[in-house]
Amino acid sequence: MEQWLTTLKTETPQAGFELAIKLSRMGVKYTQPDMEKLKKGRADYDENAPFLIQASSVIAQNFNTVAQANDFWKK
Amino acid sequence: MEQWLTTLKTETPQAGFELAIKLSRMGVKYTQPDMEKLKKGRADYDENAPFLIQASSVIAQNFNTVAQANDFWKK
Amino acid sequence: MEQWLTTLKTETPQAGFELAIKLSRMGVKYTQPDMEKLKKGRADYDENAPFLIQASSVIAQNFNTVAQANDFWKK
Amino acid sequence: MEQWLTTLKTETPQAGFELAIKLSRMGVKYTQPDMEKLKKGRADYDENAPFLIQASSVIAQNFNTVAQANDFWKK
Amino acid sequence: MEQWLTTLKTETPQAGFELAIKLSRMGVKYTQPDMEKLKKGRADYDENAPFLIQASSVIAQNFNTVAQANDFWKK
Amino acid sequence: MEQWLTTLKTETPQAGFELAIKLSRMGVKYTQPDMEKLKKGRADYDENAPFLIQASSVIAQNFNTVAQANDFWKK
Repeated sequence: MEQWLTTLKTETPQAGFELAIKLSRMGVKYTQPDMEKLKKGRADYDENAPFLIQASSVIAQNFNTVAQANDFWKK
Repeated sequence: MEQWLTTLKTETPQAGFELAIKLSRMGVKYTQPDMEKLKKGRADYDENAPFLIQASSVIAQNFNTVAQANDFWKK
Repeated sequence: MEQWLTTLKTETPQAGFELAIKLSRMGVKYTQPDMEKLKKGRADYDENAPFLIQASSVIAQNFNTVAQANDFWKK
Repeated sequence: MEQWLTTLKTETPQAGFELAIKLSRMGVKYTQPDMEKLKKGRADYDENAPFLIQASSVIAQNFNTVAQANDFWKK
Repeated sequence: MEQWLTTLKTETPQAGFELAIKLSRMGVKYTQPDMEKLKKGRADYDENAPFLIQASSVIAQNFNTVAQANDFWKK
Repeated sequence: MEQWLTTLKTETPQAGFELAIKLSRMGVKYTQPDMEKLKKGRADYDENAPFLIQASSVIAQNFNTVAQANDFWKK
């Protein structure tokens, strides 16, 4: 795959949260690289609350990693 | 998206818990930005205990990150 | 919401475990503040083993945070 | 509740794993203290592989906490 | 139960991954010690992708603990 | 099993993410070594969004471990 991740450092916590979202999406994309299938399958869960919470859970996991990589933006 | 997260520092553990709730909700909102769809889908799970526990699980994950960022409010 | 969490420090590991239970319940309560709906929805899962294990999982997540906050009660 | 947890320290990793099991069970028991309901509900999942894996997941979470509390029994 | 876990130290990361698998299986076995029931229930999920992913998730949790115990095999 | 994991160190965060994917897949493969069954079962979930999110969750867990092993590629 082409280069898409060069560092876990971000300027701000919000940028870190958005990187966590990217990591979560890339986890999906590596598992299913066919974008047509992805979009088709995703549409069924567009209003599905448990699915959306599960997505938020993966973001939370990745955000923990990104936050650690940035020393929680303490400085 | 507009700025909504500038720091993980909070004055108190309770404020940290409430920030964890905000992070959990933002994870959902980034995944499904259409508020109408969100509300519609959520209504079905209003009394659904497994859904509510799952929501609490995401909050717990984010609270761990926020607590670390605040050195667990030890000082 | 009124003040309900002022510190993550507890005297004993067991008190820490009980605080983890409180955190888990508060995650549910913030998500669904209507106590009537909570009780109604919960009754259906009273004997449901997967639900109870999921509840234990959230407690375990919060207990990890509380244990870290107390240096695992090492001293 | 009566005293059931006084320390997270154990002599060996195996004793730590068994403590993690106890923590996982206590998370269930605090959520549903009625032992009759617990046993009744559990019987349905006696051979259910996803349920058993979920139980193992909670044990893994608690074992991480116990292992940290014991510095991974390094010394 | 007889002795099955004396240390979390392993020579290599791969041996650590295999220990994580053992821990995951022992979590199942402590929950359901009847091997006949285990095998019977497991057969139904032999090709079930969500079940297999869930098993991999428990292994990942235990591998994190084992990796920490070995300082991530850095030296 | 033959040797497939000799180190958790990677040159870049992206290589670390790809190692996390490998670890996630190996967790599945150790649980179900029969590749025919794996492929057959997986096909049913090819467009299944909750399954794909769950796969991303396991990757996130393993990525946390790999990132720690590399000091988050800080240097």
